[in-house]
Amino acid sequence: MKNWNAQKTGLAERLADGGRYAAGKTVEVEKLRNFLEAVIRPGDRVCLEGDNQKQADVLADALANVDSAKVHELHMVQSGVVLPEHLDVFDKGIARKLDYSYSGPQAARIARMLFGGKIELGAVHTYLELFARYFIDLTPNVALIAAVSADKDGNLYTGPNTEDTPTVVEATSFKSGLVVAQVAEIVDQLPRVDIPGDQVHFVVEAKKPFFVEPLFTRDPAAITEGQILTAMLAIKGIYAPYGVKRLNHGIGFNTAAIELLLPTYGERLGLKGKVATRFALNPHPALIPAIESGWVEQIHSFGSEVGMEDYIRARPDIYFTGPDGSLRSNRAFCQVAGLYACDMFIGSTLQIDLQGNSSTVTTSRIAGFGGAPNMGSDARGRRHPSEPWLQAGKEADPDGPAPLRRGRKLVVQIGETFGDKNVPLFVEKLDALALAEKLNLELAPVMIYGDDVTHIVTEEGIANLLLCHDEDEREQAIRGVAGYTDVGRGRDAKMVQRLRERGVIRRPEDLKIDPLDADRSLLAARSIKDLVQWSGGLYAPPSKFRNW
Amino acid sequence: MKNWNAQKTGLAERLADGGRYAAGKTVEVEKLRNFLEAVIRPGDRVCLEGDNQKQADVLADALANVDSAKVHELHMVQSGVVLPEHLDVFDKGIARKLDYSYSGPQAARIARMLFGGKIELGAVHTYLELFARYFIDLTPNVALIAAVSADKDGNLYTGPNTEDTPTVVEATSFKSGLVVAQVAEIVDQLPRVDIPGDQVHFVVEAKKPFFVEPLFTRDPAAITEGQILTAMLAIKGIYAPYGVKRLNHGIGFNTAAIELLLPTYGERLGLKGKVATRFALNPHPALIPAIESGWVEQIHSFGSEVGMEDYIRARPDIYFTGPDGSLRSNRAFCQVAGLYACDMFIGSTLQIDLQGNSSTVTTSRIAGFGGAPNMGSDARGRRHPSEPWLQAGKEADPDGPAPLRRGRKLVVQIGETFGDKNVPLFVEKLDALALAEKLNLELAPVMIYGDDVTHIVTEEGIANLLLCHDEDEREQAIRGVAGYTDVGRGRDAKMVQRLRERGVIRRPEDLKIDPLDADRSLLAARSIKDLVQWSGGLYAPPSKFRNW
Repeated sequence: MKNWNAQKTGLAERLADGGRYAAGKTVEVEKLRNFLEAVIRPGDRVCLEGDNQKQADVLADALANVDSAKVHELHMVQSGVVLPEHLDVFDKGIARKLDYSYSGPQAARIARMLFGGKIELGAVHTYLELFARYFIDLTPNVALIAAVSADKDGNLYTGPNTEDTPTVVEATSFKSGLVVAQVAEIVDQLPRVDIPGDQVHFVVEAKKPFFVEPLFTRDPAAITEGQILTAMLAIKGIYAPYGVKRLNHGIGFNTAAIELLLPTYGERLGLKGKVATRFALNPHPALIPAIESGWVEQIHSFGSEVGMEDYIRARPDIYFTGPDGSLRSNRAFCQVAGLYACDMFIGSTLQIDLQGNSSTVTTSRIAGFGGAPNMGSDARGRRHPSEPWLQAGKEADPDGPAPLRRGRKLVVQIGETFGDKNVPLFVEKLDALALAEKLNLELAPVMIYGDDVTHIVTEEGIANLLLCHDEDEREQAIRGVAGYTDVGRGRDAKMVQRLRERGVIRRPEDLKIDPLDADRSLLAARSIKDLVQWSGGLYAPPSKFRNW
Repeated sequence: MKNWNAQKTGLAERLADGGRYAAGKTVEVEKLRNFLEAVIRPGDRVCLEGDNQKQADVLADALANVDSAKVHELHMVQSGVVLPEHLDVFDKGIARKLDYSYSGPQAARIARMLFGGKIELGAVHTYLELFARYFIDLTPNVALIAAVSADKDGNLYTGPNTEDTPTVVEATSFKSGLVVAQVAEIVDQLPRVDIPGDQVHFVVEAKKPFFVEPLFTRDPAAITEGQILTAMLAIKGIYAPYGVKRLNHGIGFNTAAIELLLPTYGERLGLKGKVATRFALNPHPALIPAIESGWVEQIHSFGSEVGMEDYIRARPDIYFTGPDGSLRSNRAFCQVAGLYACDMFIGSTLQIDLQGNSSTVTTSRIAGFGGAPNMGSDARGRRHPSEPWLQAGKEADPDGPAPLRRGRKLVVQIGETFGDKNVPLFVEKLDALALAEKLNLELAPVMIYGDDVTHIVTEEGIANLLLCHDEDEREQAIRGVAGYTDVGRGRDAKMVQRLRERGVIRRPEDLKIDPLDADRSLLAARSIKDLVQWSGGLYAPPSKFRNW
């Protein structure tokens, strides 16, 4: 007779094996290595949290030090590959296969290890896509997660960086997987319960906070006049005519410039209350002046940002906060919000090709996608109308029958024609393609596909790809805003002129924007110190951003 | 100085006002009407749960009986409009505006009330889309939800019908909204905690279970030979060649037939373990024989199904279950799984037009979309490859450069050319269009758009729309499987023949399927009683499905 209970039996065995190193649910850090060797089985799918921001660093260190004779062939399924230990487990023969979403600091090492056969790659996902697979075919057998504090029953308080934790725990715990949490401390009374204790099997008191990095802090002092010009173009040429109220911003300097221009340039254009009122967004410090000026009505966040804790706590009408006053973030729901409830995604990229495909990949790094491809794609399952969405749909298909015509999400790529170190933004062929060939990948790591992009903004102007009738026009529209890059110089000047006459390309002067006005004095804050001032001293930037 | 704390202050006032009718967190049913009048403000956004299956019926009844002089202008934001009380609140002047996802039994009344100006329609959403907006611009001020039991601290046990509750509560509670739960009983110790008590402000002991209906139970006795033939075509002509392992099924009889053919016809084709192993699916009783025969590895569910409780509890290796043994469902995560982790959606519809657009709308009913448009759309943000997805992408774009070519989700519409009461499945113009004109809607309520559909299956054969080169070919491919309907008889016979030679259309004989084999003896279960037998007596069908 078939056994239908293997997973629950397996869990009971893990609980018994782990219990030998625990007092109740509590495991001491010193016993962690033996504990993990006792509860993890060879071949397990393991989620070592592994978010965009917070890291279960103590658990990562312990896992990287288990005996590979006992624990091996692990299949790591985690959104962030960030700490060296996340890859050490492959070097040491503890893990074999990897499915992930984002890898900032480890991108080059991942590429080398893939090329050297040290890692068997499952796939590189968006966050939401990996979360989806947690419920279908990549369900973790073991989740090693991070929280701020726990009580003796294993109830967890994640604090503002809730991020991926509820999703990981739900998928693991309700499929009879084992959940082990690292917390800074075990307390009698939690500020709030983010994860119920009956979903958490063991708790490790790390006696220090988990590792977390400020990833979304852009120093206004580093914003260039080129970026300010692109921001002016975006506000006047896209935000205003479409009336974009619900949106997501990328994390680059161009969108930081937009955030800092809302209360100055945006105010002058009379756009307050008419655009950029509701965000799916991490708590970007650069948005503080817009919030303080009354531009922003509501923000839901993927994660938190180091230094923003007190500011968020003091602005509960804007942010999602718990009864304890601190932020409640949730990456899964915020990604869903970015996909289905926002009318625009705008972000920077490293390379754009002649079809409008864009990528942040270079030939030696596999950084992963994070959330951009999810938010930067047309949401074809969407059924609720809004003005910006309908207008974009109409531009794409002016002759279609109105009630059968779908809207379109605005997907905007913004950047200067020559980026950091004078590297051209526009290329004939993406490095992502060369990487795909080198590593024999089935899919080139394209961040946003050209057929999803609606606008490209550079200091030379805005290309509205919705208005292009065919591929030739798209290519010339892209070349037409590519400046003095090779791609830009390869333009068909007459065709570009015709596109401009049709409004497909709009130059700064077409929008009555004088590039000479793109001055740093337009920024509502010109330094981190200014942001602190705007916040009434509530924003507490990490020391690396303090130079006063 | 600006007040940034209006929402938390408002919540404190609601808590104080509500507290006058409560003992601790507990409100008696008898005081419910006065309590709701005390805590709800005119103009509030209210989510009256309102899921696909379970209903907060006691709270619905109380809300429909509040004094409209005290409570009015409510904006209802709930996924399901199912109970009469959900619309009574509009008739009585308590509510004014409606944003929703699905309305089965109330579809005709909604249409009449819209037409009569009794309801101001926000929009009709997919579930995931409405959930997304809960975090951006439709955040509830008050959530009236349903659970099985609570403890004195307000911790909630939802039982197998967790459904929308965690999503609604998270959006409401963390934006300083008020959460009121109806439960059957208040107990000392919950079987498990589904919602932490600090997210729940008041609990009403209803002393009876919430209303829940079996929505996904299809009696095998009602499956026709025509449906069996379409199921054979789908299995041999789509499941097999694409190797579809991860999928979602609609809730009609055609997909029920597929479920019941897997252990018979599918087994004979040698497909066990090769197709249909992992599902995003409610616990369909029709899948019991396939599960018992070892076809299915894992199922994640949107909600539960009445009568399946004991069966699920005895099959924890297949379903997601809690430490208490009962199902854990989650509509938001299962919709995400259907969108991003499934390679196929297959479902029935009521009407298909010449472009392949389909709809379940008729001119007098606005039933809403539920989840179909989300799962039945190409997920353009997806970045992980799989064989079925890559193959579909290659068929759609055979000349595209492989690493830059995206895959495609298989979106299959299945039905007989003449459906219930001999109504043709294929039409020149969708009733949805007529409805849009009549009600002056900006968008016609199209369930699945033609450009997302990859295959149409009828008893006449399979049309593979991926292989069509232009709109004419698409139209003829659709006409070519439309049988003796007007649309089918309007075909260009020569072109249809050419499409068949190219494999765009495949007849039963092309797949070596003899329609005479489409016999009810092929069904693994031919009655509800057979399903009970397959389950070893664990499945306990509701009495309306028992005739023995």
